[in-house]
Amino acid sequence: MNRLGILIFVLIAILTSVVRANDPLPSWNTGPTKTALINFVKRATTKGNPEYVSPPQRIATFDNDGTLWSEKPVYFQLQFAIDRIKALAAKHPEWKTEQPFKTILEEEQKALTSLSAKDMMILLMTTHAGTTTKEFKKTVRAWLKTARHPRFNRPYTELVFQPMLELLAYLRANGFKTYIVSGGGIEFLRVFAEDVYGIPPEQVIGSSIKTKFEIRKGKPVIVRLSEIDFIDDKAGKPVAINKFIGRRPIAAFGNSDGDLQMLQWTTAGDGIRFGLLVHHTDSKREWAYDRQSHVGRLDVALKEAKQRGWTVVDMKRDWKAIYPFQK
Amino acid sequence: MNRLGILIFVLIAILTSVVRANDPLPSWNTGPTKTALINFVKRATTKGNPEYVSPPQRIATFDNDGTLWSEKPVYFQLQFAIDRIKALAAKHPEWKTEQPFKTILEEEQKALTSLSAKDMMILLMTTHAGTTTKEFKKTVRAWLKTARHPRFNRPYTELVFQPMLELLAYLRANGFKTYIVSGGGIEFLRVFAEDVYGIPPEQVIGSSIKTKFEIRKGKPVIVRLSEIDFIDDKAGKPVAINKFIGRRPIAAFGNSDGDLQMLQWTTAGDGIRFGLLVHHTDSKREWAYDRQSHVGRLDVALKEAKQRGWTVVDMKRDWKAIYPFQK
Repeated sequence: MNRLGILIFVLIAILTSVVRANDPLPSWNTGPTKTALINFVKRATTKGNPEYVSPPQRIATFDNDGTLWSEKPVYFQLQFAIDRIKALAAKHPEWKTEQPFKTILEEEQKALTSLSAKDMMILLMTTHAGTTTKEFKKTVRAWLKTARHPRFNRPYTELVFQPMLELLAYLRANGFKTYIVSGGGIEFLRVFAEDVYGIPPEQVIGSSIKTKFEIRKGKPVIVRLSEIDFIDDKAGKPVAINKFIGRRPIAAFGNSDGDLQMLQWTTAGDGIRFGLLVHHTDSKREWAYDRQSHVGRLDVALKEAKQRGWTVVDMKRDWKAIYPFQK
Repeated sequence: MNRLGILIFVLIAILTSVVRANDPLPSWNTGPTKTALINFVKRATTKGNPEYVSPPQRIATFDNDGTLWSEKPVYFQLQFAIDRIKALAAKHPEWKTEQPFKTILEEEQKALTSLSAKDMMILLMTTHAGTTTKEFKKTVRAWLKTARHPRFNRPYTELVFQPMLELLAYLRANGFKTYIVSGGGIEFLRVFAEDVYGIPPEQVIGSSIKTKFEIRKGKPVIVRLSEIDFIDDKAGKPVAINKFIGRRPIAAFGNSDGDLQMLQWTTAGDGIRFGLLVHHTDSKREWAYDRQSHVGRLDVALKEAKQRGWTVVDMKRDWKAIYPFQK
């Protein structure tokens, strides 16, 4: 870089920081939630403050479904699994009589409301066993391009939460490494996480199918097997965090009882800690649900939030915009 | 930063790059191996070059035993496992008659030469089941402080290869993300990888024991179970790379047949690729072994290196110094 280049670089850095300092979270309404977030980041990153956290320790983990994007009417990945079964049905006449395929093909809506996150992984596993990881990614990419959300008639990747995109960027600008820790499939998430959230594949943790290395037509490939490797939900989340990251996060963000143990593990560490739950309270702009919901049930974790001092986002009150297209 | 601070920062950056440009690999003798390494890095990082690789894709994976540190007379982690059994023996009188503990306690040398990497994981698993990950790390840390290598009478962490430390630093200075992908235990490696190699825990991949999240005395902990989770060796290496990193590396470094599939997988990708094997040829300063060795056998991979154009380090010829204390 020549001198002018350096000068321009420094100017841009200063200007960027001024703009950021102005309001790093423009889609968050002023109030206790926004204040809690900003206070946490300032306390953790101010040198000399006894709560200062060195950059390598600034790990923040985010659940995906219901925390970074919507999860209604059903998990988006479940819709993908159903769509794949419909697409592959012609090659599998036996599915007309075999369960759960029969129900899925005949009564899609019924199947959608009764399947769990684990059922979803099993469906993807059985329907895609034997395909290479490369082929599977191609299939996901094609689906994300063409599939539309039934309520908003937009690609699923547009149903991400604008305030959370800002939060991810704000944390990274302050030296945090941001991770996804999701019950969804790791190979599914990695297809879009980098483009949509700015989270690279190596910072995406999720449920997984066992795979196998083999040489096909002289070329090494990784092949999906018909066996669940790991379900990254509930108590599985801290286990996966310990395995993949090997450090305890200092901040964790979730929205359901599936995130309870991740928040417990994160906030029980020494020093400054931050736990946050997104409470879906906006039936008009998004959805309103908690204790009674089949998908994304928030019950025990909401009770613990009070005892443990976790921050609870009231979506209706705290979020100025929900999706990027509403900005 | 004020103006003077910025000026000093820029000056230091320029000076550092001048010194580095001078010789980034001072412990590597001039010759084809060093030239191949430098050419690869220049080609992958020069903008405008058709082989240019964007920084997020610059992933380099390193085996540990025999590649980053010595593995003779036995895997250092195996010595740790044996030492732990001796330390715990007083509390386990039953080991005097139970195998493999009986042999280990009576004939340590015999046990050391007959146990495999998997046996080593099983030993650590059975002897440390029920301990928390935190307790296990503490045990490893204490052992690394006091244990001494039988030949060099130095801590095991001083038996790292100076040329490889320089290579790790050189790659990182050129925007590479460096990973360990080892048959050794992930929790064992993570205790020293950051201090010794500059590789943070989240970039360490290894064999693992299953763990469980639980609340002990009101505090969440991760507990080691008595079940192997994954052996990160041979065909397991590309599988683990795909799971943990989710991208194919562009460079891989190993020293034995256990690294064959990692090198195959890495070098079969599109664009510029680099595979390297450390051939132990220096019986005087380190050890000389390959096809006939029980630990670190190098046979099939050495044959494939010629066919596939992988670089082979001739330790005796290529390395000016072996260990940091010999610089």
